[in-house]
Formats: sequence, C-alpha cells, structure tokens
Amino acid sequence: MMADVSQCRVGICGLGTVASATYNLLTRYAPLIQSRTGTDVTVVHVGCRRDHPDCDLSNVRVSRDIFDVVRDPEVDVVLELIGGTDPALALVREALATGKHVVTANKALIAEFGAELFDLADTNNVSIRYEAAVAGGIPVIKAIREGLVGNEISRVAGIINGTTNFILSEMEGVGNRGFDEVLAEAQELGYAEADPTFDVEGIDAAHKLTILSTIAFGVPLEFEAIYTEGISQVTVADIRFAEQLGYKIKHLGITARDGEGVELRVHPTLVPNSALLAQVSGVMNAVMVTSNAAGETMYYGAGAGGDATGSAVVSDVVDIARDHLGIPSAGYGASDMTTLPIKLIEDIESPFYLRLTARDKPGVMASLTSILSRYNISIESLVQRDANADEVPVVIITNRVRESAMNAALAEISEQSSVTGGITRIRVL
Amino acid sequence: MMADVSQCRVGICGLGTVASATYNLLTRYAPLIQSRTGTDVTVVHVGCRRDHPDCDLSNVRVSRDIFDVVRDPEVDVVLELIGGTDPALALVREALATGKHVVTANKALIAEFGAELFDLADTNNVSIRYEAAVAGGIPVIKAIREGLVGNEISRVAGIINGTTNFILSEMEGVGNRGFDEVLAEAQELGYAEADPTFDVEGIDAAHKLTILSTIAFGVPLEFEAIYTEGISQVTVADIRFAEQLGYKIKHLGITARDGEGVELRVHPTLVPNSALLAQVSGVMNAVMVTSNAAGETMYYGAGAGGDATGSAVVSDVVDIARDHLGIPSAGYGASDMTTLPIKLIEDIESPFYLRLTARDKPGVMASLTSILSRYNISIESLVQRDANADEVPVVIITNRVRESAMNAALAEISEQSSVTGGITRIRVL
Repeated sequence: MMADVSQCRVGICGLGTVASATYNLLTRYAPLIQSRTGTDVTVVHVGCRRDHPDCDLSNVRVSRDIFDVVRDPEVDVVLELIGGTDPALALVREALATGKHVVTANKALIAEFGAELFDLADTNNVSIRYEAAVAGGIPVIKAIREGLVGNEISRVAGIINGTTNFILSEMEGVGNRGFDEVLAEAQELGYAEADPTFDVEGIDAAHKLTILSTIAFGVPLEFEAIYTEGISQVTVADIRFAEQLGYKIKHLGITARDGEGVELRVHPTLVPNSALLAQVSGVMNAVMVTSNAAGETMYYGAGAGGDATGSAVVSDVVDIARDHLGIPSAGYGASDMTTLPIKLIEDIESPFYLRLTARDKPGVMASLTSILSRYNISIESLVQRDANADEVPVVIITNRVRESAMNAALAEISEQSSVTGGITRIRVL
Repeated sequence: MMADVSQCRVGICGLGTVASATYNLLTRYAPLIQSRTGTDVTVVHVGCRRDHPDCDLSNVRVSRDIFDVVRDPEVDVVLELIGGTDPALALVREALATGKHVVTANKALIAEFGAELFDLADTNNVSIRYEAAVAGGIPVIKAIREGLVGNEISRVAGIINGTTNFILSEMEGVGNRGFDEVLAEAQELGYAEADPTFDVEGIDAAHKLTILSTIAFGVPLEFEAIYTEGISQVTVADIRFAEQLGYKIKHLGITARDGEGVELRVHPTLVPNSALLAQVSGVMNAVMVTSNAAGETMYYGAGAGGDATGSAVVSDVVDIARDHLGIPSAGYGASDMTTLPIKLIEDIESPFYLRLTARDKPGVMASLTSILSRYNISIESLVQRDANADEVPVVIITNRVRESAMNAALAEISEQSSVTGGITRIRVL
C-alpha cells in the first residue's frame, strides 16, 4: 500500500514565529513523518533576512533573498510564511508560475488574491494549500473539504480570532473590566498587537471567513463583499444582560448558504449557553459546521501560535508529498464553482438583542411595543432593571427579523423622546 | 490540477440504516461529489436480504447474496455495512484478497481483526478505510492521520459512545433519575438497544478506542488488552457530589502514550467543568487530542445515525476514488508500527474520586487520613454532608496516584469498622 520512499524537497520563505516552528517540526520529526507517510520530507533551503535563535540552520542552504528559494531548482514545495501581501504575492506568483507547489499560512493573501492564485496553480498543474491560514492548528479546511465531502453544507459559524475571544472572555470574568482595560492586558500578554485594529475590528476574521465560505460552498472568494463589525463597542453591561438571558457574547464569523445567496458576516453575536461554541473561551478557536448528513460538527483548538500553525503547514506539505493532487485548490473544481450573490447585511434575518435607556417606563414600553409590532417584530425576552430609577435600561431579545426592518424600527424608536442615549443592537446566533 | 473525471464503481453490502443512508447520499449527491472531486462515484451493485423503503434500487443491480457484490468484476470498492464479524470478516477478506478496496463502518471487525485485514490490504495493494467506525460523522481519523500528521500525539480522550453519554446527561438533569430509569427511557427513544450491554458496559467504546490508539500512536490493535468499565454502577449521588466539586461524570475512552507504554482504558471519569469535553451532552460524541505542536484539538459531532455515519463512509469512498492510496491502513507504514507494552490498569496513575459511608466521623477521618498518607495519597478536596446523621457520606478527590497503591489503600480502608458499605471510586481526567 505504501508508496516507495520518495523525496519532497522544501524551501521555506521567512523565519518568523510560524516559519521557525515549521522548520523545527519538519527537521526534528522527519522520521515520524516518514513513518506515517513513506515520504522523506527535507528542508533544503531557507530564505530569511536574519537567522532565528531557535533554529539550527547549519545543514541547510540559507539565502537572504527569499526569491532565491523560489528560484532554487532543488525546491519542490515553497512555504510562503512571510505574511502580508508584498512581496508575498509576487513570491507565490513566481513559485506557481515556475511549477512549484506552494503552502502558505497567509489568510490575507488567499482571501484577497486566492482566485488568481488558484487559477495560476491550475494552469501550471501544481497545488496551493493554506490549511494554516484558517484557525491555526485545527485541521478544519481538511475536515470540510475531505471529511465532509459528501455533505451539502448550509452554515459555518466560528470563533476564528483568538484575540477577540480572549478579550470577550476576560470581560465576562469577575471585575467588570471594560474593553480598553482588557485590550491593554492582552497586549501585555502578547495576545494582541500594538496596533490591534486588524484583530479587534474583525478584519483578520473576515479574511478567514472568506476562505471558509469558498471551501464550504464552492463560491468565489469575495473578501470585498463581507460585512465586518469588531468588538470595540461591546460593553460589560451587554455581557451581563446577555448572561441573564442565557447567552454569551462571542465574536463570530458566520457564512451560510441558501437558494437565494450567501451570507458572509463577522460581528459580535449572542450565542446560547447550550451551544458548545459558547463554551470556547480564552484564545481558543472553534468552527461549527452544519451540513445535511453529518449534522453539526465542531472543530476546536489553538487558532494561533508558531507550533499550532506549523502543524497545519506540515500537514499541507505532507499532503503534497503524498501526491494528493486531485484535490482542487478551492475544494471544488474551477468549472464547478457557483457564483451566488453575497447577501447584503440588510437582507439577512436574525434575532436581535437590543439595549436602550428609557425615561418614563410605562410610556416607553407602550411606544416600543407598538413600533416593533408595526414591523412584525415580536419580543422573545425582556429584562428591566432598577425600576425605580429615573432612567432604566430596557433589554430585549426579538424573534428572527430582517435587518432592514430592524433598522427602520430602530430609527423610529430612537426618535422617541422617552429614549435617552443610543440603542445597542447585537445579532443573536 | 483536477484529474480527469474517472469512474469509481461502488458495491454496497447490507441495506440497514447506515447502508441505506450511504446509498442515498452517493446517488442523490453524485453531482456534488463530482464537483468537489472530479470523480464519478457510482453505486453499481447492492447486496441485501431485503429492499429498504427509503432506497430506490431501480437503477442498480441487486443481489440477495452479499458475496455476489464482492465477486462482481465491475465493483472497484466494496462497502461492508452489515456489521458484526460473521460473515463480515469473510466478506472483507475475500474483497481484499481479490484486489478490491474496502470501506467499512464496522468497529468490532477493525478492532478485533484489523491487523490481519491491514496486512491483506497491503499484500494486495488495495485500501481498507474505516472513518465511520469511530465517532460516526466526525472526521476524526482523517484529522489524526492527516491533519496532525506532523505531531507527536500524547493522549486521545473521548466521549465515543452516544448511548452512555445520553444516559449520564439525563441522570445529571433534574429529577434525580437513576441509571435503570434513564436506560429504559433511552431504549424507548431508540438511543439504546433492547440488550444494552454492548454500549453501557463499554465494549463499543473499547472497540473504537482500540482503533484510535493505533491511528494515534502507530501501535498494533490490541483489543484484548483494553481495560473496560461501563456506567451501570454510576449513581445520581456520585453525579451530585461531582457537581459540587466542579466536575461532570463522563464515560471516556482514554489512550495515552509515554516512553514506558500505552494506556488503553474505558471507564466513567470525572471531567472538570472547565474542559470542553464536560460540556458535550446528550448523544453527541467528541474526541480531544493532545499533541506536541497543535496542542489540544477537539472534534465534535454525531457519533451515530445513518446519515452521519454515511457521511464518513462517503468521505472514505471519495479518498479511494481520488487515489489517495499512499496512506497506510493503520496511519503508519507496516514496518513503522511500534510495539509498546499496553500498561496494566494497576500501573496507571490518575487522581481518584472516592465515596464511602462512615459511622463515627472523627474516628473515620483519622483512620482514613492515616491510611491514605501511608500510601502517599494526598487529599485535594473533601465533601462531608449530613454531619449530624449516624452514617455520613465522605467524598474525597485525591492527588494523582498509581492504581495499585489506591487498591491497597482501599482494601485497608474497607476493613475499618467505621466504614459501612462499599467504597465507590471513579478516576478523574
């Protein structure tokens, strides 16, 4: 059954956290990989501006120009682990165009330029693999693409950014610490960047969700069409009200498909405590997939970190070494991709959590109820507190309603003189 | 990148719940499978004693003798979905010996006869695949074998039997219903067989754990060496005490590997509430894998049911159709399997939950403490209740201790005149 031991020669571009971990996994565990695959995977060339203290590069060719790796005729597979799109895009283009397989952990590159790169791989009869680009060490792309290959997938919902999940988990804890305070802690711990925008505003999650959507539904990558909302507006008050109602607030990427189109959205979401996703805390990631045959399956693990991400890179390298080349880059053959409209957020239905502050409670309840009912929005739960104060918070969970109807109702409600301050609304899973 | 459309001709043996679901998935979703794989997977022959009301067999050859399917020269892949070992073993032997690939959902067959069948597949240059044999629709074998291929796995712990998880989840609920009452309910709902022994005594979980151990560690299948304890002795009292201490009682399969050998054990286990495994309830399954690079990853989903199991069968068929034949049957090449001793349960260390009933509390606490300390067993937590009653329950969670030391200590404790009745002990994860 085992193929004869063949050689797969790897070139690594970059030597940061993920690349150095990958280098060490591939070199230290070469015998393990050979015993599980019958393939001799050898790193022959590393391109990096500077050495890494954790990596012994004495038995490998080292270049300071990463393009030397791509141009090395002895390299069969190029690992693009430098991140960003410049010069990663040029590097990957050149690798594919010259007949080398590519493995990358670069979510921005795939989400924004994947369509072009998949075509280029097809044309040149090579593979481009990117398991490490989504949810780090969790083999979720393999699970969707191969494990659920016979399933019609209807939804993928996931916690796919560890930074935001850490911040929300900490805000949930005792102490009532707000977003800014917890963000500062996350930065100290190395869980958030000095400029945290990419994570906390949801851009990183949007890149990953774009990729998941393509793999799950066979639709083109449409990063520019995704609806993205970050967590900087989530307050401890909302977390506490959600708790009372039996929910946790999680930052989710949600993509769903029905006959009309595809939902593609990243935003804070109330998740019922009974859902396993609600129990995923700290920096961990988890992706819940809903499909017709397997039902709900979930994949959980570390979404970042050198070793976890390196584990995913190694699995892609081994798949290529095993010559599993019959799997199309997007999980679907190029001619089998479906172009479906990406739904506008205004056209998507979900239940909503609403919080507003009101004076003159009897009056506000009457007007609230009448406005909501005019838009066919019914109330599933309601929390009122501090009933004797002048201004009271009113918290409502509605039934499923189209976002455009909710927008219209909220516009009317915000004009009521009894409603003071803004209205917070968070979608419910 | 896509291979040309090639044909993969499938023969199905059996037409029960799993087989009929598989038949329908393969026939109804053939276009989806082709779009994701470039392969035309066609069911050409079904062997079954009787038709199934859900299956339209009008376009397929049907035989009443399942061996006709194996002997059909047009069949490339045989799906063994009849269960049990007689005649499944003879059927699979003949299929492999005559050069046909085999996909099976039969955990007993693989756990007990896998070694022979893997050899036979190797010799005849064909594949035998069994994703559906473990945890139903969850692609956990693929995840371990391919997704974590570059990882040294140290432990696999899972809820791999839905019947026992359902019973324990129900016993946890309000109403303080005991094992017998909940078992009867599970039988009514179709979650437990009329003769539930196979599930509730842990044999089904033992079959699955044997397979997971081989896939994870590259050790031979050793079903006869597994330590197995069921859930029929678990009481509501234990579940309530565990709750107070911050644990849930789950029926786990645990296999771990260190330098000395392999742990292979199925038994009720206290799982800390903070572990995601503790949150997996009802008939759902989940497998937590601990490995050096990816860290902790978990795979969750439906462990049984026709469609979920069929989903796993289809994924194996597609892998074979894609010609992914470089993957050895056991996940490791035959010459790379490691023979490691399976540890005796007496040599395995874990923390223990102990519950006993005592008279004369001051006396019993003194003698308990002194006996435990003589065996170097320290107490992590202790719960006492009904302090004024004649007989009081004493509940202890110990530190990590070797099972043989615990056995010796418990033998001494049970001889104390102040200890009335038996001593319950449950291992802690």
